[in-house]
Formats: sequence, structure tokens, C-alpha cells
Amino acid sequence: MKNQFFEEKLSGQYRNIPPSFVRSILNVAGNKEMISFAGGLPNPGLFPVKELAESAQSVMQESGPTILQYAGSLGYYPLREWIANRYRQKYNMDISPEMVVITNGSQQVLDIMAKLFLNKNDSVILEKPSYLGAIQAFSAYQPNFYEVDMEANGANLMQVEEGFLNHDIKLMYTVPNAQNPSGISYSEEKRLDLAMLLKKYNQFLLEDDPYNEICFEGDFPAPIKKHAPDNVAWTGSFSKMVAPGLRNGWVVLPPELVPHFDKAKQSTDLNPNNITQYMLFHFLTHNNIDDHLAKINIKYAEQCLFMQQMLKKYLPENVQATQPSGGMFIWLTLPGNICSDELVKRTLKKGVVFVPGNSFFTNGQGAEHIRLNFTNAGFAEIEKGIKIIAEEMEEMQKETTVIA
Amino acid sequence: MKNQFFEEKLSGQYRNIPPSFVRSILNVAGNKEMISFAGGLPNPGLFPVKELAESAQSVMQESGPTILQYAGSLGYYPLREWIANRYRQKYNMDISPEMVVITNGSQQVLDIMAKLFLNKNDSVILEKPSYLGAIQAFSAYQPNFYEVDMEANGANLMQVEEGFLNHDIKLMYTVPNAQNPSGISYSEEKRLDLAMLLKKYNQFLLEDDPYNEICFEGDFPAPIKKHAPDNVAWTGSFSKMVAPGLRNGWVVLPPELVPHFDKAKQSTDLNPNNITQYMLFHFLTHNNIDDHLAKINIKYAEQCLFMQQMLKKYLPENVQATQPSGGMFIWLTLPGNICSDELVKRTLKKGVVFVPGNSFFTNGQGAEHIRLNFTNAGFAEIEKGIKIIAEEMEEMQKETTVIA
Repeated sequence: MKNQFFEEKLSGQYRNIPPSFVRSILNVAGNKEMISFAGGLPNPGLFPVKELAESAQSVMQESGPTILQYAGSLGYYPLREWIANRYRQKYNMDISPEMVVITNGSQQVLDIMAKLFLNKNDSVILEKPSYLGAIQAFSAYQPNFYEVDMEANGANLMQVEEGFLNHDIKLMYTVPNAQNPSGISYSEEKRLDLAMLLKKYNQFLLEDDPYNEICFEGDFPAPIKKHAPDNVAWTGSFSKMVAPGLRNGWVVLPPELVPHFDKAKQSTDLNPNNITQYMLFHFLTHNNIDDHLAKINIKYAEQCLFMQQMLKKYLPENVQATQPSGGMFIWLTLPGNICSDELVKRTLKKGVVFVPGNSFFTNGQGAEHIRLNFTNAGFAEIEKGIKIIAEEMEEMQKETTVIA
Repeated sequence: MKNQFFEEKLSGQYRNIPPSFVRSILNVAGNKEMISFAGGLPNPGLFPVKELAESAQSVMQESGPTILQYAGSLGYYPLREWIANRYRQKYNMDISPEMVVITNGSQQVLDIMAKLFLNKNDSVILEKPSYLGAIQAFSAYQPNFYEVDMEANGANLMQVEEGFLNHDIKLMYTVPNAQNPSGISYSEEKRLDLAMLLKKYNQFLLEDDPYNEICFEGDFPAPIKKHAPDNVAWTGSFSKMVAPGLRNGWVVLPPELVPHFDKAKQSTDLNPNNITQYMLFHFLTHNNIDDHLAKINIKYAEQCLFMQQMLKKYLPENVQATQPSGGMFIWLTLPGNICSDELVKRTLKKGVVFVPGNSFFTNGQGAEHIRLNFTNAGFAEIEKGIKIIAEEMEEMQKETTVIA
């Protein structure tokens, strides 16, 4: 009876949010015995713990009463300035601190952008597959999803143009660098072409870029934002650059959109966390962030390469794997007779967990894919885990062969 | 043309959020020359800066890598346990840690509860006046507001019952203790009666209680939650108890609602700030919070009393003021010929700012009220500020008399 009480009262928008397999297995994945390729967790061994502890102490001593008070909803100005300077220089882009808004991780940007733009039944272009957290954030606003194929160098732009022409699109969402879950990055050409389409059709893009600085060789090409500044909101995150526990992300907006974004955000939580913003700014200005990023990228590149070697060594030949140039994930495509939902049930019993592909689709597709995280397991674990996945795949193939 | 681009794309839900006078004048109020009775800022002189600095240092040293990682979306378990224990003991209520969810201030609870319950055009009962941040958070979900009068001992319950009977209410919202903006607290009897109505009509209440611990003598009566546990979500906040910069609030939910609240919250920002949760828990378990609260309450009671004396000394006799027993605000009712919007324009020129009453109504009413914050100004400022407000009121009364 009590459950029914709430069942009757819960809103349509809430009911529309899909469950998160990732979150529901994170408890299992947190079990120390379990080998987890499931989460999107950075390697905690690379967190600058000592430096952040020093920063915490310094800023509390120097500015305690200010830091502990309510604060501006757009974020700490010197941190916004730091972000603007870094990316103005990195990509020779026109970014001022006033265009930068600090958020609770870049995830909050997804929620607020959806709140700003999406009426019920408005259409959103998503890549197929797409980031699960975006699917969930957008679903709460009950849009229609128009999905475009993710190719080796980015989204299928013919399908994007078809959407702009015939599907009354309100917003497009992309992860251009080392996409979660596929690991795919857009080519420079595709970025330019997409920017052209946005301008031609007067469309708006949410360019979600949490892995911008997690690039194994050199830098990713400039963001789409550079080529269509008025048509793009470009997000970034300190979760992968420094540490997720800070919960500090940001978005670079067209200036006209800033007051609207601000107003929509204020009503959800007043202002971003001031303590961690000050800590972060102190850390960034008292340490060499590029040295720190180099350390992360060397380590992740090794882990990625090693996982690819293990995949090649153990998996059946008819399994395809993406070759990410950054980020945290490899994406597998399995032969038709292996369903990844079934596979994970089996590997869980053997102590290995990953995320089955259908979490990253809005329509139940994706059973032939799995997402593997390579940043949060040691070499021995990677080998053992991939071997177990391979053995279970072979078992399943044998069984289906026998049944057939 | 660029502005038009966004004008055309912004959603109906966003357009429905009213602007915040409070936020828009906070820049002005932040001006050091200005005497501000406008914000809802705690007195920063009372923040336990040294203790929190020590806590920051300790938790970073002891648990750095854990604190800096992604974390559970429900919050840090020991902190949830601390909250459950404190209020189980304080009110002899049945609260387990599993019913407590940590949020980014209690403001986030308002957004998530609205997301969970409110379809477009669902009806919400609000007190008249009501907390501006709640009006804004709810407005983003486009409900209808059904407003009930705030009396000296709480909401008019005949009007509430009339709403339950005839207006298809989805949710009721109340601030039972030292309400923002009126300073009014519910009597014990009214709490019991409202609890009875909730159960009788199978209704759900969001009991927003950020001022629970800001009580000048003894304690406020037990929350409505105690008398109708299945029908109430009860929020609290460390913003007034410790410091707003932590951005740590919470909600105590009926157990069945926890997984729903959690899922809706995850999609907005993944998890609450782990660093400040650890800091706070360390602070709470290494210091005497009751001694700290006693210090705050003595100071605020003095500031409140002094402001009341000044109101009596300077204001025209036909102005009424509430006599809060806690919290941070006094609410004035002006004679009919003084419009508070006009008044604030005049006092701003003389260096004094407050919030005009219509910010706390959803229908443009309230011009005969003003909200005064008493926690963030010294005695000399309070006297000077009230004197200026009184002079401008007298000017306005004279002018309207002449016109009449």
C-alpha cells in the first residue's frame, strides 16, 4: 500500500529516466575481490593527494570566512579565468572568463542544458552509442531521441543533416574526444563539417568534453566550439584532470546564454562548492598541471595498450575492439550469438564485471557490445579479467553452436 | 539576431522560472558600503574556520585517495548516521541512516522533489508568503500554485483542507520553523493537525527545515514528519548550523522513496561533494556542535532583539513586525499607501537594501511587505539602516497624503 502511494504520485518525467546498470553494479564493483572494468573511475593512485591537502590547508587559512559563506552562482572568478586562459591559449579560441560557468561536475551541465532547452517531445540528436549519464539526464525532460551512427571518425553526418532537415531537432549532444563508451574521437574534418551544419541549420550543440586532457599522444584537434562558437556549449571537467571528488566541472557558453544558464542552475542548488573551487585554483596555480597530466597519460596509455594486447591474446578473433587515443574506455563488438547481458551474468560469478552495451542505447539495442574501463585495474587484474571474459565467451559460443 | 536564436529555443519550463530579486541585488548587497538586510547570509564571524581547517587537513591526510574519488550518490554513510542519530534522539523519532540522503544544500532537495512529483499543471500548496528558492525550483516544473495564508502559528489549515478536497494537490510545501521570509513558526497543535490532514487525504508534504537548530530559546516542537512519517520528506541543512560553503544539506525520506530520489538525483550531478562531507563529519565528531549552536543562537537572538527595538524606535506605528523565535528574518507589514518596491528603490540610493515582499508570492501580491535579515549586520548598521528605511517610509507617506 505504501509503495502504491508513491507509484501513483511519481511524475512522468521521473518515470522516463532509465535505470543505470553502471550505478547498480558499482556496489558489486566496489567489492575488493571483484575485477572491475565497469566504472569510469580514474586511477586513485594518480590523485595529487599531498598537493591538494596543502591547498586545502592554505585556502582555509588565508580565506576561511569567505570560502565558507554562500558564493556566486557562476563560480569562483579566478578559476573561471584560469579555464578561459588555458583553452584560449591551447586552441587559440575567443574565450573570456565571463563565458565560463563552474558546475558540480560536467554532469550538472547536462541536466541544466536539458532544463533550458527541452520541452516534452522535443527532439535531441544522440550518438549511437552515447554516454549513459546524458541519456539519463535528458530522459528526465521526456524528449524524443534521434540517434545517429558513431563511425570510426565520429558521428555519421549525413544522418545528422537528415535530422536537422526533417526531425525538428532542438539540441544535439556529442562527446567528441575518446567518447564514453566507444573510445572514438572525431577527426578534424568531421568537426569542421559538423560546425558548418550547425551554422547552416541554426542548430545548437552540447559538446561534452571530459576527456579533453586525457590524450595519449599530443592533443586532440580543437573542439567543434572553435568553429561555431555561437552554436555550441562546450563542457569540461576536473574529474579526470585532477580528481572527481572535487565535483568541479565547467561549461563555456555563448555569452547570451550565460544569464539563462545561471538562472536555471540557481534554482537547483544556489551555487557550486566554494571550498573545492578555492582548493582547485590553489592547486592549479601552485603546481604544474601539464606535468601532472603527462603522468596520467603515460599510465593510462600503458593500461590501454596492455588491455588491447590481452584482448588480442585471449578473445575470439571475431570480436572487434576500438583503439582509443585517450580517455578511459575500449568498446567491443561481439559476434551475433553472444549477448552481453548474458555474458556479464556469467563473468560476475567468476569475479569480473563490465557494462553491457545496451546501457548506452535508448532503444534496447546494443546487446552485441561491451564497454571496458582500463584505468582502474592493474596489469595482473587486466590479464586475469580478460581471460575470464574470453573463456565465458567461448563457452557461450559452444553452447549456441550445440543448440543450433 | 543571436538573442533571438536562444529566445526561440528556450523551454517552457525555463521560461516559467521567476527572476530572483534577491540574487539580482546580491551584487549590490555585497558592496561594502551598503547596509544589507537583503540576503540570507549567516554571520561569517561565527564560522568555525580554525576547526574546519583542521578537519580538512586531517581527512585529506587520513583518507585522501578515497575522498577524491567518485562516491556513493546517497552520501557518506557515517554522516548519514550522525544525522539519523541526532534527530532520533532530539525528537524520539524513528530515523535510520538509510532514510537520510545528503544533497548540495537543502535547495537541491527542492529541485529533486519537484522533479520526482510534479507533472506540468499538477497543483502544489504553498504558504503565502513562501520561500523564494522553493517558488523558483518548483516553477521549473510548471505546476499550479495553490496558496494558503500564513497565520501567526502556521498555515491556515482550513484552506489546506479545502485544497486537499477540491484542488487535486500533488505536493504541499512548508517551512515550519522560523519561516523564510516571515519568521513564523508552527505551533505544536498545528503540526499535529496538519499531520492528521496529510494522513486523512493521503497527501505528501515537503517539510523544509533549514532553521531547525537556529532557535533562540530551547527547541522548536518536533517536526510534522514525526506525526506522519510516511507522508513527509523532511529536509535539513548544515548551512546555518556550520557554514553554507560546505554545500551540505540532507533529506529524511520514507524508505520507499529513497531509491526514487536517488535515481532522480544521480542524473543531475552523480554524487554529493565527498571532500566537504568528510570535513563536516570530522568537524561534528571532534567538536561540540551544541556549544557551537549555543554561540550562534545567543548572537542571533541579540541581533534580532536589537533590530526589533530599532523598528519600534524608528518606524511609524502602523507598521507591523513579526517576532521570530529563531531563524534569520523579520517580516514587516506596511500601511497600504507604501509600496515596498518603491521603498527599496529609495533606500538603495541611501545605501540600504532589503527584499520587497512580492518576491515571496507567486501572483504579484506582497507589495505591502518587506523581509529584513538580522544576522549579517552589526548593531550600528542595524540602527542606521532601520532609521533610513523609516525616514523614507515617512517621506512616502507624506507624499501620498499630499497627493490624496
